[in-house]
Amino acid sequence: MASVITCDAAVAWGPGELLVLEKVEVDPPMAMEIRVKIICTSLCRSDINQWENKAQSSLFPRIFGHEASGIVESVGEGVTEFDVGDHVLTVFIGECTACKHCLSGKSNMCQVLGLERRGVMHGDQKTRFSIKGKPVFHYCAVSSFSEYTVVHSGCAVKLDHDVPMDRICLLSCGAAAGLGAAWNVANISEGSSVVIYGLGTVAQGAKLRGASLVIGVDINPEKYEKAKAFGITEFINPSDCDEPIQQVIKRLTDGGADYSFECIGDTKMVSTALQSCCDAWGMTVTLGVPKGNPEVSAHYGMLLSGKTLKGSLFGGWKPKSDLPLLVAKYLNKDIEIDNLVTHDLPLKDINTAFELMKKGKCLRCVIHMPK
Amino acid sequence: MASVITCDAAVAWGPGELLVLEKVEVDPPMAMEIRVKIICTSLCRSDINQWENKAQSSLFPRIFGHEASGIVESVGEGVTEFDVGDHVLTVFIGECTACKHCLSGKSNMCQVLGLERRGVMHGDQKTRFSIKGKPVFHYCAVSSFSEYTVVHSGCAVKLDHDVPMDRICLLSCGAAAGLGAAWNVANISEGSSVVIYGLGTVAQGAKLRGASLVIGVDINPEKYEKAKAFGITEFINPSDCDEPIQQVIKRLTDGGADYSFECIGDTKMVSTALQSCCDAWGMTVTLGVPKGNPEVSAHYGMLLSGKTLKGSLFGGWKPKSDLPLLVAKYLNKDIEIDNLVTHDLPLKDINTAFELMKKGKCLRCVIHMPK
Repeated sequence: MASVITCDAAVAWGPGELLVLEKVEVDPPMAMEIRVKIICTSLCRSDINQWENKAQSSLFPRIFGHEASGIVESVGEGVTEFDVGDHVLTVFIGECTACKHCLSGKSNMCQVLGLERRGVMHGDQKTRFSIKGKPVFHYCAVSSFSEYTVVHSGCAVKLDHDVPMDRICLLSCGAAAGLGAAWNVANISEGSSVVIYGLGTVAQGAKLRGASLVIGVDINPEKYEKAKAFGITEFINPSDCDEPIQQVIKRLTDGGADYSFECIGDTKMVSTALQSCCDAWGMTVTLGVPKGNPEVSAHYGMLLSGKTLKGSLFGGWKPKSDLPLLVAKYLNKDIEIDNLVTHDLPLKDINTAFELMKKGKCLRCVIHMPK
Repeated sequence: MASVITCDAAVAWGPGELLVLEKVEVDPPMAMEIRVKIICTSLCRSDINQWENKAQSSLFPRIFGHEASGIVESVGEGVTEFDVGDHVLTVFIGECTACKHCLSGKSNMCQVLGLERRGVMHGDQKTRFSIKGKPVFHYCAVSSFSEYTVVHSGCAVKLDHDVPMDRICLLSCGAAAGLGAAWNVANISEGSSVVIYGLGTVAQGAKLRGASLVIGVDINPEKYEKAKAFGITEFINPSDCDEPIQQVIKRLTDGGADYSFECIGDTKMVSTALQSCCDAWGMTVTLGVPKGNPEVSAHYGMLLSGKTLKGSLFGGWKPKSDLPLLVAKYLNKDIEIDNLVTHDLPLKDINTAFELMKKGKCLRCVIHMPK
């Protein structure tokens, strides 16, 4: 029987407050759970948005982080899928493989291990972290800004030992979500035109599908070179335009793009993205998790003209069923995620990573745990 | 060369003002236009919404009406598709057969003869109606509340002489739009669950696709019997429910319907419809043209869970390419539209039809022109 581990974790004591490295107690895994020694974890925009979210102040102190790779340290009762020493990728939505959605073949919205919003474990609705007896809340059922964490065994995917832990963590969320949005949700077709608000792997997904025009829109001109490497064929900085960006897009695409993607997490931008895609078959996909106004709004005429608006969580991927295929594509160099990493930082510098992302100065920062 | 015709028309002199039977002058058709003797025209909710629309007061006096059958009285220069005496169905969106959208094979949003919003003819942006020299505006390029009207030849579809003119007019818009929303837009699959806000041919489309649960939501209990005939398997009157209607739907469908349709023209109801369909594959289709707030709004979480929101004009049908197939289905009794007609009225009683629809007391009123 495993015992409590005391280790370092970056704890957020209140919304928007700088993270503090604290000694936390990590409980042993309960039934169907595993305790994981985190190796690397990358920072995602949704970590930032929820960290800044004052409406969630009752869920602090909290340990954020959900894009992570690690090694199984101990397993709870009933776990047969994992052994101590297994390399794993954590995932913020699980796959129970038995519910209506998992069995549907057309959903990754597991009804048992779906998005956890209350900062606790799925099983007993309690935390596995504490500081001097005071509970510390989880985030998205992962909480990887800690040397050790406990996750449900349905929220982890086994990795071969030759998979580079410092890069594969990106497939835990953002990088996979972008590819899934392009392939599973939009199902981009060859020769099509695509506009992407906010840069990331959607562009790569579009390029690999043979899109002929991939327009990236970003306010940071420093991202241009990176953008080209992802597959962006045209880069537009809205600050350089003297007309609404959707007008620029319409001109470049003869009436609107075939697909538009909102990856920023700005609900107002969803409307701009809808206006940027063409009548009839135009499709707007929203991936971003907004930190502000949660209401998406659009003139009904956008829909009446036949456009489609849809979203997805994790790009529609079922973690256990689909992630191994993406990992294999990465190892085979069919997909590229290394170039998303702009910074490698030790856990003690995690606030720097937050700052870089808030200022739009990074794509992905990978946090390395102490050896 | 045809000359001006003076005939009766129901003229709206201002937004929401009772229509007045007036003698109007109808110009001869210009190039590529036809002048049509209207036989029957049914009243559609969008006629009412635009008639009440104070924002469009500059487009009065105006002749509404767009669901119509008639006989070609004269043809303009260059028209080879129609001859005098041809029976036709008018359509509010045309098909030029040559633009990018018409040629795409996936759009009915013709770029030449698309929705006409300025109350004039596509060709010269002028009206063909006048009263004592004062122009009277068109509506949706049809204006069928007149004994004679002029339409672009791209906005009419030829009918065989054995097609009943007093019923086929319904396929000009509403009845076809509902079937198209079910078949072309949602592509309803066998055994699925469907919820429909506002009754109409969507239910029939769902039934013919083999949906196993078709829930109709309407505040008028008198429509229940009609609803059953259309294919509704459950009828819910929100006034009878002591919890939000989307909760009732979720309970009846084990988490949400596969498809939900908003056919009322209430943008707030779009959000309810989105909440009524299930995560992941749930799809909401909006058909209604709102008379009030034109902004559709929805919590981003609805989209993040994978739901799809889309709309369509005329159910995605291309008028010239697709309507003949629907007419054939009607004649073959594969589809039923007669039971949508609750009232037959002469042109002089057109205000009664407006009143019936405003009060939700009818499904379709067919207006018969003087013989």
